[in-house]
Amino acid sequence: MSASSLAAEIRAGRRRAADVVEERLADIAARDPRFNAFTEVTAARARAEAAAVDAKVAAGQDPGPMAGVPVAVKNLFDLEGITTLAGAKIERDAPAATRDAFLVRRMQAAGAVMLGALNMDEYAYGFTTENAHFGPCHNPHDLTRIAGGSSGGSAAAVAGGLVPITLGSDTNGSIRVPSSLCGIWGLKPTYGRLSRSGGFLFAASFDHLGPFARELADLALAYNTLQGEDPEDPAQHWVGEAPVQLAPGIGDLRIAVAGDHFAQGGHAEAFAAVEAVAKALGATRGVTIPDAALGRAAAFLITMAEGANLHLPNLRTRPQDFDFATRDRFLAGALLPAHWLQQAQRVRAAYRARALRLFDEVDVIIAPATPYVAPKIGQEMIEVDGVMIPVRPNLGVYTQPISCIGLPVIAAPIADPAALGTPGGMPIGVQLIAAPWAEEKLFRVAAALEKLGVCKAPDVKA
Amino acid sequence: MSASSLAAEIRAGRRRAADVVEERLADIAARDPRFNAFTEVTAARARAEAAAVDAKVAAGQDPGPMAGVPVAVKNLFDLEGITTLAGAKIERDAPAATRDAFLVRRMQAAGAVMLGALNMDEYAYGFTTENAHFGPCHNPHDLTRIAGGSSGGSAAAVAGGLVPITLGSDTNGSIRVPSSLCGIWGLKPTYGRLSRSGGFLFAASFDHLGPFARELADLALAYNTLQGEDPEDPAQHWVGEAPVQLAPGIGDLRIAVAGDHFAQGGHAEAFAAVEAVAKALGATRGVTIPDAALGRAAAFLITMAEGANLHLPNLRTRPQDFDFATRDRFLAGALLPAHWLQQAQRVRAAYRARALRLFDEVDVIIAPATPYVAPKIGQEMIEVDGVMIPVRPNLGVYTQPISCIGLPVIAAPIADPAALGTPGGMPIGVQLIAAPWAEEKLFRVAAALEKLGVCKAPDVKA
Repeated sequence: MSASSLAAEIRAGRRRAADVVEERLADIAARDPRFNAFTEVTAARARAEAAAVDAKVAAGQDPGPMAGVPVAVKNLFDLEGITTLAGAKIERDAPAATRDAFLVRRMQAAGAVMLGALNMDEYAYGFTTENAHFGPCHNPHDLTRIAGGSSGGSAAAVAGGLVPITLGSDTNGSIRVPSSLCGIWGLKPTYGRLSRSGGFLFAASFDHLGPFARELADLALAYNTLQGEDPEDPAQHWVGEAPVQLAPGIGDLRIAVAGDHFAQGGHAEAFAAVEAVAKALGATRGVTIPDAALGRAAAFLITMAEGANLHLPNLRTRPQDFDFATRDRFLAGALLPAHWLQQAQRVRAAYRARALRLFDEVDVIIAPATPYVAPKIGQEMIEVDGVMIPVRPNLGVYTQPISCIGLPVIAAPIADPAALGTPGGMPIGVQLIAAPWAEEKLFRVAAALEKLGVCKAPDVKA
Repeated sequence: MSASSLAAEIRAGRRRAADVVEERLADIAARDPRFNAFTEVTAARARAEAAAVDAKVAAGQDPGPMAGVPVAVKNLFDLEGITTLAGAKIERDAPAATRDAFLVRRMQAAGAVMLGALNMDEYAYGFTTENAHFGPCHNPHDLTRIAGGSSGGSAAAVAGGLVPITLGSDTNGSIRVPSSLCGIWGLKPTYGRLSRSGGFLFAASFDHLGPFARELADLALAYNTLQGEDPEDPAQHWVGEAPVQLAPGIGDLRIAVAGDHFAQGGHAEAFAAVEAVAKALGATRGVTIPDAALGRAAAFLITMAEGANLHLPNLRTRPQDFDFATRDRFLAGALLPAHWLQQAQRVRAAYRARALRLFDEVDVIIAPATPYVAPKIGQEMIEVDGVMIPVRPNLGVYTQPISCIGLPVIAAPIADPAALGTPGGMPIGVQLIAAPWAEEKLFRVAAALEKLGVCKAPDVKA
């Protein structure tokens, strides 16, 4: 059942939030061991919040548009009373958070019920959620495969039907990659749109927070709920609320397909997904996002440097406590010369200026989300164009050039990936990309794709 | 004669631009050898421009508000047909500029006549204009003293009466320091206000271009002329034209004096200047710009890193061709680790956010411009609070914390420095500081100070 329908039932008093919570807790206890999506289940909190929602309904008050909707968040969001782990063993020593993250407060104020915290790559530095401390997260569509990352737990919990809405973070692709690999909707909003207060940062000039959902209507519900001005977040660029409505109809939107960098370096199913979406939308025009590979190279360096700067005290004193998968990249980031970072910032600024000009001519750009479906857990290498390359960093080949300049993106799941011939019928998604602050256009295109039956979260067969 | 009066005479046909140019060329030839302000005199260009102005007047057309006004620019502004030196021997190998810098074009379109290019510290990295390749610039008030820098030639040319208006650049104080030491008006506008196209950059995230003048009305004339949207400058943040008028009357402006960092580390005359200005304005309130010293430390590191990045190819292949005064700082900048730069950027962002909040409570802040009057040419050390410290970097102690967060500043000259007891009666100025985009408030306060007789460019006795 969708979050939107569930909230309607609960607000109308036809269903009790308390019952929903017990059902979810039982389901998580029974099925999450196979996914390893949750790192903490906040049962007491969920029961208290559900009771409060039911009490409001009983008193004739409206608990809000997310009334009784079970949600969970990547374990880098502060939850009052719990230590924010950010996937790191090191953070176990940190004190418990004394206050919920801003976005958690927004959802709670709208009536949502918090079920817990979700698995991720350590400090969000990865695309696979093969966490050395907490174990790998398993893809609900095939438990031998990764869920993607770094917000793997957030995507797996939604794809596996444990909760209808979760939150994650996206620095270089960490919402869009697991959305694609798990076959669900994900939104990386414009950089600066949603508050990051109470979120554990990774590379601050790239970090975005955003929602996942199985239903597009739920993604819109979450996005509308999460918006709000936060004077405590210096990185928020507040341009006012911009609620979206799901009205399919792309009208005169100019839609184009990204070529060059985005038309190579992946497997056939990635491009077949783009082609299917473009065909359904009647999008015949191609567009080149100039210098995308250069922008991606800059994003790699800046991410390393910003991440290393953030973790430098621990890198100096207890490197052995980092996940081996992230430690070496952080150490390398700490050793970069300043002029590399400076050069990367210059490249990024020039790339951004050039890329933004594209939106004079197009409204929405379609690009692959991932270069292939979910690899196997533990898989190191993959063949692309006849060459064996490291499978993990390449997962961000199409997402990284977009987030490093802050553009909003919806990751849209292909409804019938088997019909595209994906290996094992595994899910795959596409990116719908717009100019800064133009999320509304993305939702219009996504709604059209949903109505056309091209995009929809495929059912989990397992 | 002021630029404003001169333009009025020429527009009215009472005086010929050609005569003014000949007089200026003769004066420069006769007196500049003692200042060493000009590195190139563009006599042919000036004569042609003056002739064009006179022709317009003869034809009954209006040549513009700067009709026939002789101007000159720091030699980092592109002048068509001349190689842009930026004070560097290395740049002698560069081809001549094919087009004037944007601000030069603005002045030319307003009828100004370009007399030439002015001396500076190599690549704008310095506060003294003791240029190893082109020789030191001499202070018109005492030829044994520096004019300040890095826009030393721009300040000396104006203070010495060679031209009424010049342009310079200010990265960490390079307009305000020479304004103070030469006793003239200088404006460092809000970061992003004026186009930098065709200007040789130094540390791009700090670089500002701006005017110098002996008369406040001329500073306003220049500022109004220089404003304009430039689609070619990605760093310009265009907020529309904001012409200023000189209407003394500070109304209900809340004016405060900067304490702490800005009330220590200088000689008595620096603080006496601030006190005189505050007293005249009836400003009794003090204000602390928090973390100013920390912001300055960040500015040092970021300047080094950005400058080194810009010059890295030459630092690698021909370090011997740099001015010894800048080379070692650039090399050090090239060796900084990325995490220092990243940390400095974080400090700067946090400092900026804190500092901007001050302007909820005050409109204009008064601070010293330089910690002492112009030192002797070649002077290495100076005593401050009983300790000998390097004289040159300390010249920016009060300017650097302001420019690194992009605030607009007018450097205002004390009318009678001898009455303040300055050594040798040498000039000194103060900074008038406002919130971003509030240059208009600065001009109101400056006009009040001029009317009160407290601020005015003192006459050159030499």
